[in-house]
Amino acid sequence: MNKKFKIIIIGSGNVAEHLIRSFEYSVNSEVVQVYSRNTEAGNELSPKFNIDFTNSLDRLKKADLYLIAVSDTAIAEVSNSLPFTDRLVAHTSGATSMDILNNKNKQAVFYPLQSFTKGKKIDFSNIPICIETISNEDCDTIMSIAESISNTVSKVSSEQRQYLHASAVFVNNFTNHMFHIGKEIADHHNVDFNLLKPLIKETVEKLEYKSPMQAQTGPAVRGDKITMEKHLGLIPDETHKEIYRLITESIFKTHN
Amino acid sequence: MNKKFKIIIIGSGNVAEHLIRSFEYSVNSEVVQVYSRNTEAGNELSPKFNIDFTNSLDRLKKADLYLIAVSDTAIAEVSNSLPFTDRLVAHTSGATSMDILNNKNKQAVFYPLQSFTKGKKIDFSNIPICIETISNEDCDTIMSIAESISNTVSKVSSEQRQYLHASAVFVNNFTNHMFHIGKEIADHHNVDFNLLKPLIKETVEKLEYKSPMQAQTGPAVRGDKITMEKHLGLIPDETHKEIYRLITESIFKTHN
Repeated sequence: MNKKFKIIIIGSGNVAEHLIRSFEYSVNSEVVQVYSRNTEAGNELSPKFNIDFTNSLDRLKKADLYLIAVSDTAIAEVSNSLPFTDRLVAHTSGATSMDILNNKNKQAVFYPLQSFTKGKKIDFSNIPICIETISNEDCDTIMSIAESISNTVSKVSSEQRQYLHASAVFVNNFTNHMFHIGKEIADHHNVDFNLLKPLIKETVEKLEYKSPMQAQTGPAVRGDKITMEKHLGLIPDETHKEIYRLITESIFKTHN
Repeated sequence: MNKKFKIIIIGSGNVAEHLIRSFEYSVNSEVVQVYSRNTEAGNELSPKFNIDFTNSLDRLKKADLYLIAVSDTAIAEVSNSLPFTDRLVAHTSGATSMDILNNKNKQAVFYPLQSFTKGKKIDFSNIPICIETISNEDCDTIMSIAESISNTVSKVSSEQRQYLHASAVFVNNFTNHMFHIGKEIADHHNVDFNLLKPLIKETVEKLEYKSPMQAQTGPAVRGDKITMEKHLGLIPDETHKEIYRLITESIFKTHN
């Protein structure tokens, strides 16, 4: 059997833990160490996955890939503090450009495009991993490692990744807020929000065979002012009313 | 075997066709006739389901339930034109109150809470049907008929149904528009929108074990102004920018 790629995870949060778990069954890669300033979190992770933990950068082992999974604002500082050069160092952030990493090491990005929930196991094989590197050699390494845990690995430039991240805010964060407003309207009138779940599922399933442009239905696209006015009268929250008006206007403009 | 409930569908559009199909395997109900002013559409439906079609109200047969599946604005007129009294007549609209139906007949509502796509078969057993009637006897009839095609039948008042319909606009129409904007951002920068689909699926799956309030993530809930400003700089469309600002503000207000 070939030697496995050695990976060190820098960070002990939610994404770090999901990454560590994702490599448990990788055939060509293994996490050999976890580093975190947060000793408590590290000491929890370490026995859980039977992986060496250190809170000292000086005790970092030699590895094929250092994966920085810390908050966006801490990436630069961590990367600057690494006490070695010419090794492959990737961050895992969607919103952060590759060159924020100190170029004393070989810069790369390893961005799993998913919203991770603490404690909820997730099948990594379905999560797209967007990668970026400087050299082709680094690309081969990162590609091999990423493909050992995911079926969808895509080369995405820093510029493209920014747009992907902005798009993710609409399709994930904002969509979830639409669910929140819908639930609030239902809850306030003792209507079971579960009644709406099959509709929500169908909204997503339609993406498989129609573009969202083709799939658009409802009073806004029809320009059905009577129903719109009725709905506005039913929404007590002023901000939610404003959202109703603005998205309705945007849908109408998109289609007319 | 007991006698089946006889149903007549009034209308020949998308919802009418889905309803006709849903009763094909009902054990206690059968569609015995379809009425439509649109002779062409009726003549297409009739052989497809081997059901009698008429374009004349005077030739309507006797039935246990007349299901009006026409556009919201046509319901009142159709209901007024029915040449009989004291029979059970239901409309299928989410946004329309029950009493729009002429009270010479027994008024009812039979509202399947789903967004139907022409030509796409759908499993009706998962679609909630919201029913409303005047009397308990009518309720028993409609309940039996609805339960023969769906696993979720709920008594919902006209008032509650209005709120459900407003809520559906947020979780379905507006969510779909979020997908549209996300896709537009991705498309304009040659990023494959498919990369975002696992994230979209996860957004919906989270509803099974978290409220949307608990599930909210992203720069808006964190108050991460740096990322927000970055995103606003990436969105060319002024209305989409405005949507970004407003929903971000709403998420922040909801959580802080």
